[in-house]
Amino acid sequence: MTQGFPGTMPNAYQPGKGNLPPEDEALVARRARALGPAYRLFYETPVHLVRGDGVWLYDTAGKAYLDTYNNVASVGHCHPHVVAATARQSAIFASHTRYLHEGVLTYAERLLAHFPAELSHVMFTCTGSEANDLAFRIARAHTGGTGFIVTENAYHGVTYAIAGMSPSLGAGVDLGEHVRVVPAPRSGADTGAEFAAGVQAAIREMQRHGIKPAALIVDTVFSSDGVFTDPAGFLQPAVQAIRAAGGLFIADEVQPGFGRTGAAMWGFQRHGLMPDMVSLGKPMGNGYPVAGLVIQPQVIEAFGSKARYFNTFGGNAVAAATALAVLEVVENEQLMDNARNVGAAFAEGLRGLAKDHAALGELRAVGLFLGQDIVDDAGQPDATRASQIVNRLREEGVLISATGPKGHVLKIRPPLVFSHDNVAFFLDRLERVLSSV
Amino acid sequence: MTQGFPGTMPNAYQPGKGNLPPEDEALVARRARALGPAYRLFYETPVHLVRGDGVWLYDTAGKAYLDTYNNVASVGHCHPHVVAATARQSAIFASHTRYLHEGVLTYAERLLAHFPAELSHVMFTCTGSEANDLAFRIARAHTGGTGFIVTENAYHGVTYAIAGMSPSLGAGVDLGEHVRVVPAPRSGADTGAEFAAGVQAAIREMQRHGIKPAALIVDTVFSSDGVFTDPAGFLQPAVQAIRAAGGLFIADEVQPGFGRTGAAMWGFQRHGLMPDMVSLGKPMGNGYPVAGLVIQPQVIEAFGSKARYFNTFGGNAVAAATALAVLEVVENEQLMDNARNVGAAFAEGLRGLAKDHAALGELRAVGLFLGQDIVDDAGQPDATRASQIVNRLREEGVLISATGPKGHVLKIRPPLVFSHDNVAFFLDRLERVLSSV
Repeated sequence: MTQGFPGTMPNAYQPGKGNLPPEDEALVARRARALGPAYRLFYETPVHLVRGDGVWLYDTAGKAYLDTYNNVASVGHCHPHVVAATARQSAIFASHTRYLHEGVLTYAERLLAHFPAELSHVMFTCTGSEANDLAFRIARAHTGGTGFIVTENAYHGVTYAIAGMSPSLGAGVDLGEHVRVVPAPRSGADTGAEFAAGVQAAIREMQRHGIKPAALIVDTVFSSDGVFTDPAGFLQPAVQAIRAAGGLFIADEVQPGFGRTGAAMWGFQRHGLMPDMVSLGKPMGNGYPVAGLVIQPQVIEAFGSKARYFNTFGGNAVAAATALAVLEVVENEQLMDNARNVGAAFAEGLRGLAKDHAALGELRAVGLFLGQDIVDDAGQPDATRASQIVNRLREEGVLISATGPKGHVLKIRPPLVFSHDNVAFFLDRLERVLSSV
Repeated sequence: MTQGFPGTMPNAYQPGKGNLPPEDEALVARRARALGPAYRLFYETPVHLVRGDGVWLYDTAGKAYLDTYNNVASVGHCHPHVVAATARQSAIFASHTRYLHEGVLTYAERLLAHFPAELSHVMFTCTGSEANDLAFRIARAHTGGTGFIVTENAYHGVTYAIAGMSPSLGAGVDLGEHVRVVPAPRSGADTGAEFAAGVQAAIREMQRHGIKPAALIVDTVFSSDGVFTDPAGFLQPAVQAIRAAGGLFIADEVQPGFGRTGAAMWGFQRHGLMPDMVSLGKPMGNGYPVAGLVIQPQVIEAFGSKARYFNTFGGNAVAAATALAVLEVVENEQLMDNARNVGAAFAEGLRGLAKDHAALGELRAVGLFLGQDIVDDAGQPDATRASQIVNRLREEGVLISATGPKGHVLKIRPPLVFSHDNVAFFLDRLERVLSSV
């Protein structure tokens, strides 16, 4: 089994297992032949999807799945305003940032208006990995340090430098020589002090080896660690600690960003923090490959004085038009408010179900990002049961996955257009499933 | 001035210089405010483009520019077949490779059909940088080595690891500790032996320091080194040398790939080589951010046995549909043949002009990739004159740029739909310009 120990991928398909129709078995075989051994599918029996519309995905047989997992299509699959923007700009001009074009500036300014005034520059990449990789380069240039601190099951991306800062990729992927891991936050009264103590210990250990700290980087909802959101503000002492040691604080907002927490556009704002850099990704283009890094000007000075940065596709005219359309939908459809309201009802519904179902342990949630622990009858983490729930929900037409170092946390992260009816549908299907696991 | 020494960017705009209309000055100011100090514009007076169509680009005043530079829009700006594919699939489904979807497989198989049978796997990324970064990780896993060899003015990308293998980014960007640079190929009778001798020296130097070689990576037309294409086959001894030392050969086809050389779909084929890995980028999606890495199966085994690879946007359904449309245009419009035929006429035309214009030195060209040395009256490299030509051509409605460690090589790299009439237009404008520099 794949669940239950750090570094393996929760909810990964095991080739040769599952109950696939012949046409899907054929696709699995074609994947192995053409894409090779490093690709993974979700689920005991992979889903073969062909169409998306809002919060719904459809397979080849026309079966509908409620998408309660995919945060990329944050404003809903195939949102017509976004699709139209991509199509329109693709037909006009798609070139890069070494010619003058107003589109990238209009978007940059609209995006930066959602940040505190101190965070006044944005650089565009195509992926969150590239954004974090650029943050890595800039942090080294600004601080002269080489040491980076990440949480024990963090995921920040797949470039060489950033895979080396992503322990969730497993023991087969080496961490960077100057990377130190700290315990993820724990729920409880002392969350902030405990997390800061871990960061301080890592700083001391680095310094003892002659390594100058460059930065602490965290996903501000700690998605891959199992979702840790409360109490708001608990990150402050850890950030003070890294700054006291001359390092920067990088907020990885690829997961919580663009309003998902319902409390603010960015997860760091819930914690009352002012990051040195903020990385953005997945939901930014609702599926179009666009990402970015927002930076305080003095932080980019050293890098900018000696290096140029050019990302051929990053910030191209189509990327800018698409991302602007996404931002307009987030604003105009008030999706941050929706995330807060529907997310609160979602959490309340799960807590209600937990009264009757011992499998539902602690719930950690903010807006439309929910981490639901699955436990055994003795209250201990149960990755096998979590996997059963994920796979049974798939049969019932609901898509989620699992996360955390033990793989026992249901990761619930729907498009932000999720409705109260969608929550009711989810809870109904979950209740059915819980009676059978 | 920016030209004339290694690492600076040829044809970069110098803020405060140039003769911009007020509305463009305003855009330049907005760029500095929003995008920060690491962005660059082309030209003494930047071009403000708003529309593209085939080989033509248009500025705000409606002035047309013949695009003789942008290899991203390889099948022509806003090609209707490609635009339609992007729009159609964006409206249907855009999700990732952890669900089954036939689109990515159809494209993968169609793409791999253009490779020798040994190169049978492809992995998808969003950028050429990510493709080379993945190759870096795979080469280390397969060989157990850490040493990489690149040419002296190579450019392979902007991630931390790959910027460290891109000396063309300049002295402000550190090379990787285990990266060694070798002289670029030189024209002449012993091109192959000389280049291999450099590689062998680098291998010996690495080994003397206890560094195990992992790979030699080259752009198979050596774009940023100044374009070195002949004689076909000259790369063979260098590849034999790296393999004899236990290292891999990685062909970076981001520039020459997809038929540009006219001789073959990939630059390595002109040299009669079988690479271990081949990285693809820029022209693959005609502007849509899609890239990839083609691999021999035994090379990915070690990496695949211990690591998974997931690129959220890489190989998504829209990327696959768009890239397939591009490949269909390359095939159906026989653009490789066009690159060969029109490229030959282009080279012949330049050689004709050179008889009357001493500024035109050596020409190195294959298909629609041409590197034209600009020299002074004594026949020495002249970056200032090259810059004058580039900027005067811009005034005459023709876009190109300069390259090479000395910045004195005109880089001519038009969309592959370039016609004989387009060549005639270019030569006419170049002749006008040459009489004034």
